[in-house]
Amino acid sequence: MGEQTIKFADPPSITAAASVVGPKEGEGPLARYFDVVSSDDLFGTDSWEKAESEIVRQTVELAVEKANLEMKDIQYMLAGDLLNQLTGSTFGLRGSKRPYFGLFGACSTIGMALTLGAVLVDGGYADHVIASASSHFCCAEKTFRFPLELGTQRTPTASWTVTGDGAAVISRSGDGPRITAATTGRIVDMGIKDANHMGAAMAPAAADVVTQHFRDLRIEPGYYDIIATGDLGVYGRKLFLRLMKDSGYNLDRLHTDCGIEIFYTEGQDVHAGGSGCGCSASVFAGYFYTKLKEKEINRLLFIPTGALHSVVIMQQGESIPAIAHAVAIENI
Amino acid sequence: MGEQTIKFADPPSITAAASVVGPKEGEGPLARYFDVVSSDDLFGTDSWEKAESEIVRQTVELAVEKANLEMKDIQYMLAGDLLNQLTGSTFGLRGSKRPYFGLFGACSTIGMALTLGAVLVDGGYADHVIASASSHFCCAEKTFRFPLELGTQRTPTASWTVTGDGAAVISRSGDGPRITAATTGRIVDMGIKDANHMGAAMAPAAADVVTQHFRDLRIEPGYYDIIATGDLGVYGRKLFLRLMKDSGYNLDRLHTDCGIEIFYTEGQDVHAGGSGCGCSASVFAGYFYTKLKEKEINRLLFIPTGALHSVVIMQQGESIPAIAHAVAIENI
Repeated sequence: MGEQTIKFADPPSITAAASVVGPKEGEGPLARYFDVVSSDDLFGTDSWEKAESEIVRQTVELAVEKANLEMKDIQYMLAGDLLNQLTGSTFGLRGSKRPYFGLFGACSTIGMALTLGAVLVDGGYADHVIASASSHFCCAEKTFRFPLELGTQRTPTASWTVTGDGAAVISRSGDGPRITAATTGRIVDMGIKDANHMGAAMAPAAADVVTQHFRDLRIEPGYYDIIATGDLGVYGRKLFLRLMKDSGYNLDRLHTDCGIEIFYTEGQDVHAGGSGCGCSASVFAGYFYTKLKEKEINRLLFIPTGALHSVVIMQQGESIPAIAHAVAIENI
Repeated sequence: MGEQTIKFADPPSITAAASVVGPKEGEGPLARYFDVVSSDDLFGTDSWEKAESEIVRQTVELAVEKANLEMKDIQYMLAGDLLNQLTGSTFGLRGSKRPYFGLFGACSTIGMALTLGAVLVDGGYADHVIASASSHFCCAEKTFRFPLELGTQRTPTASWTVTGDGAAVISRSGDGPRITAATTGRIVDMGIKDANHMGAAMAPAAADVVTQHFRDLRIEPGYYDIIATGDLGVYGRKLFLRLMKDSGYNLDRLHTDCGIEIFYTEGQDVHAGGSGCGCSASVFAGYFYTKLKEKEINRLLFIPTGALHSVVIMQQGESIPAIAHAVAIENI
């Protein structure tokens, strides 16, 4: 065990993953990888918050079904989202009647859920757990930025919160890529105060945890087929790659970012790219999980990134702390 | 392992605990058990949110010091609070440079932190972790109820959010009471919609997890010296005891509630009692931990209770889901 990294003795399997997204995500380049693309961003409900809860419910239930399990087989649910008091996860999972851990790491949440989920399974505390993270564009805008009705113009560095959820079933045995290692991040705050430039706030946290991951495991970046951050976007990606070079690691060819993958940056008017807890979660559960299952990728380093941004304290002049968690997922 | 209960094979020790509280808590019956009672509810800062962050920082650093450790020895920090995006924990622990898991279970958070902390230590993933949960009366009122400046009259069933933090260092070895078992709760929602009657919302969740705990471990309530819920208050306690009786367990003599213990219910104008993440956390870290160390209590069942109350979705007509986690802490 390195200073911040767990190397799992008996790496848990991700036996199923599911993703449910909204209409805009369904117009993006990854559309065919998502299990459900809704044409209705209210998901049949009468509010955005209820829609996000409905997305969580559908995604978790679908993942459990794809793993050929029933809800009662799931020993722990680890879930979180961006909303105050985790409204999406709480109300989405209210009817599930399974033990629940609510997690908050902003858009890094799925990384935390996969890590603690793997700990519970590898440690022998559970046979099956589920990890979920969600977001909804409309909920996030009203919570963190401006009322949508204002039609406020977005800056070039702003990102577009993904409407969607990605969920993964982590099991002690069974087919599927394994969670082999997890490096848990520290809070990093470089003083960024622009809530429309989250990529800049998060890039140093991502570089910190990825560098630590390589050092703890004494491996080089080339060990992985792909190194995918969560939602740095096009500007945050540049900062991340530069910071990694400063630490002696050139990731130019290995790196991608879920926020860049999920939308057409040219045609979909998303500016810096996609973001939100549901961004990395749905891109992992939809796209990367499929690529791992099909053996097109065999070693993925997945680094969901989170801006621990709070409107109230930002209005008091504070900056945006960030965190990222690195999770190694491999076919072994 | 029962359906929801972990019985730890090598029960981790709580080698130190620390508590920092505000002026009103310092006028209550447990004053002498808290490490720090501040006379300033701003804790030297210029906002309530910054005050809560300062409370978190002080408490965590004090707990680490009391364990004769340094921050660098702490492998994981598990912390949470009531504020949107966990402002208290994030900003309080921003400077600590240790791996961080943000947890949200409302006032049940310290139960989740002790459970996952014990899993990380018992499972061999860490030698030392810290669990923390905090709240601040002024932050909570403005987030969940009314602006303090309004001077809104409080209903008899309302509770008083504790200003304070309780933190515990959980270690693989060393002196101190052990975390022997943990039963993780499910979300229970009986349809309560009164944000000034959290005890009613939480009592069914507490009864659910405590009943499950006894059944999973095949023990009777009398196994414990004290069974302490988090912040049900005087009305919630009555409901809890009645629900337990319906399940065949009479806890009248064994039960207390941290929210009832922390304030004088007659003289301090707190109505139903204390509440907030910091209530059960500081009462545990201050009062119960001392009683365990002094062997006045040898077997404690500690059940922090949380109302997963979100203002936004409540305004849409939703009820208040609740959750509780049971943690057994014993001198063995």
